[in-house]
Amino acid sequence: MKPILSILKIGGNVIENKAELSKFLTLFCRLEGFKILVHGGGKLATEIAKKMGIESKMVDGRRITDEQGLDVMTMVYAGLTNKNIVAELQAKGCNAIGMSGADGNAIQAHKRPVKNIDYGFAGDVDRVNEGLLSHLLTLGLTPVFCAMTHDGKGQLLNTNADTIASELAIGLGGLYETTLYYCFERNGVLKDVSDDSSVIEHIDTRTYKYLLEQGIIADGMLPKMTNCFHALQNGVAKVCIGNMSMLSQNEKRYTTITL
Amino acid sequence: MKPILSILKIGGNVIENKAELSKFLTLFCRLEGFKILVHGGGKLATEIAKKMGIESKMVDGRRITDEQGLDVMTMVYAGLTNKNIVAELQAKGCNAIGMSGADGNAIQAHKRPVKNIDYGFAGDVDRVNEGLLSHLLTLGLTPVFCAMTHDGKGQLLNTNADTIASELAIGLGGLYETTLYYCFERNGVLKDVSDDSSVIEHIDTRTYKYLLEQGIIADGMLPKMTNCFHALQNGVAKVCIGNMSMLSQNEKRYTTITL
Repeated sequence: MKPILSILKIGGNVIENKAELSKFLTLFCRLEGFKILVHGGGKLATEIAKKMGIESKMVDGRRITDEQGLDVMTMVYAGLTNKNIVAELQAKGCNAIGMSGADGNAIQAHKRPVKNIDYGFAGDVDRVNEGLLSHLLTLGLTPVFCAMTHDGKGQLLNTNADTIASELAIGLGGLYETTLYYCFERNGVLKDVSDDSSVIEHIDTRTYKYLLEQGIIADGMLPKMTNCFHALQNGVAKVCIGNMSMLSQNEKRYTTITL
Repeated sequence: MKPILSILKIGGNVIENKAELSKFLTLFCRLEGFKILVHGGGKLATEIAKKMGIESKMVDGRRITDEQGLDVMTMVYAGLTNKNIVAELQAKGCNAIGMSGADGNAIQAHKRPVKNIDYGFAGDVDRVNEGLLSHLLTLGLTPVFCAMTHDGKGQLLNTNADTIASELAIGLGGLYETTLYYCFERNGVLKDVSDDSSVIEHIDTRTYKYLLEQGIIADGMLPKMTNCFHALQNGVAKVCIGNMSMLSQNEKRYTTITL
């Protein structure tokens, strides 16, 4: 049997709130087995860019990463956010090691080709260095990834944190029984987005089709779910979506997704 | 015989100049044996702080690290500078891994006690995790340290890069035949600070005493030399001081310091 690995992604809403983050990190520390944390950036990068007089560029609601923007992300994601999370995990007894995709060549990517939109320094993942990560896990380390990769030619790239989490889960799926956790502000995938108690407890390929047809999964949830099924179809055992309380033993209210 | 380990510290003057940095990193990559890079911060942190409207506080010419200043350092040292160096080393074929003292609990420190001056979040090193670093080196990784440590209780601390380099060299001196390289803008320790050709090729305990008595070693060189002899007295084999060309095989013009 393969050893168990949990890969958790937390978004900006948890990171931006010091008390929430601390609560999450305590739950994360209690998780048994091998684990990896992936964190998004949140509004902090936008705030700091603003203080520095740098405008965040958006096209069709999507962030465009120009050179200045990339520098701010590198400062905030890989520096400020990542190192403070690592220091707090260390204080809680978890031997965390902060990483970007460049570190140990952990995640190599390529700059997204320009089609209709030029996303700038946005990276699409090519490969995960599962050998290195497996060594680090065996040493008792807990990798903490920020949403940055590199192209192997010296260029850092901004990569979506959801994607980093799923690519890590896929890359390590051959060596570990991998569960991917997406922690966000909702209780899970909801039947009715306005009703936080309408959690769909389990989704598989068949029910997913039905939910798509019914228009129940739409908007922001659509790319998240595409990401989940992409991971499941590529060797990830299970995906869980919900708020951080899904990490506590007695919480049963979140969405589990399997093939 | 113990395996050879080179620990190199580069300062702000190299980091701030993209072409110089690239030249240095090429020389660094060619170095045989195990190696660790330590980089200072340079003026970039001060510049970015200024852009953000944060004033850098100095008392008696020494930097005071308040909370805002620490955040800027964490962004610039651990983020922007560290990750760009790592990405460039990866491009040059060196499997670099960027680290702060918090990562893998590599370097634990304590906040400097307040005496005459309150240095704020400045850290004095307590211990180096030589076991972890030895594992990482064995995996073929090259640690790249920024000038940050942590206290194990969740607090990041600013620690002088020269000190980080010497503490790493001391910590690893039991496992490796360690040479410490201080790369700076001068050709070495000079007899006459206004004459860059007056390099003192070798200094040992006896000549050091003489140089001190004659006032040849003074000012900024004094803490550097104290640091060197502290390292040598604690198990470091050799210290070399000079500009980056001392890393090329045929360069003989730099200062070597032994007990």
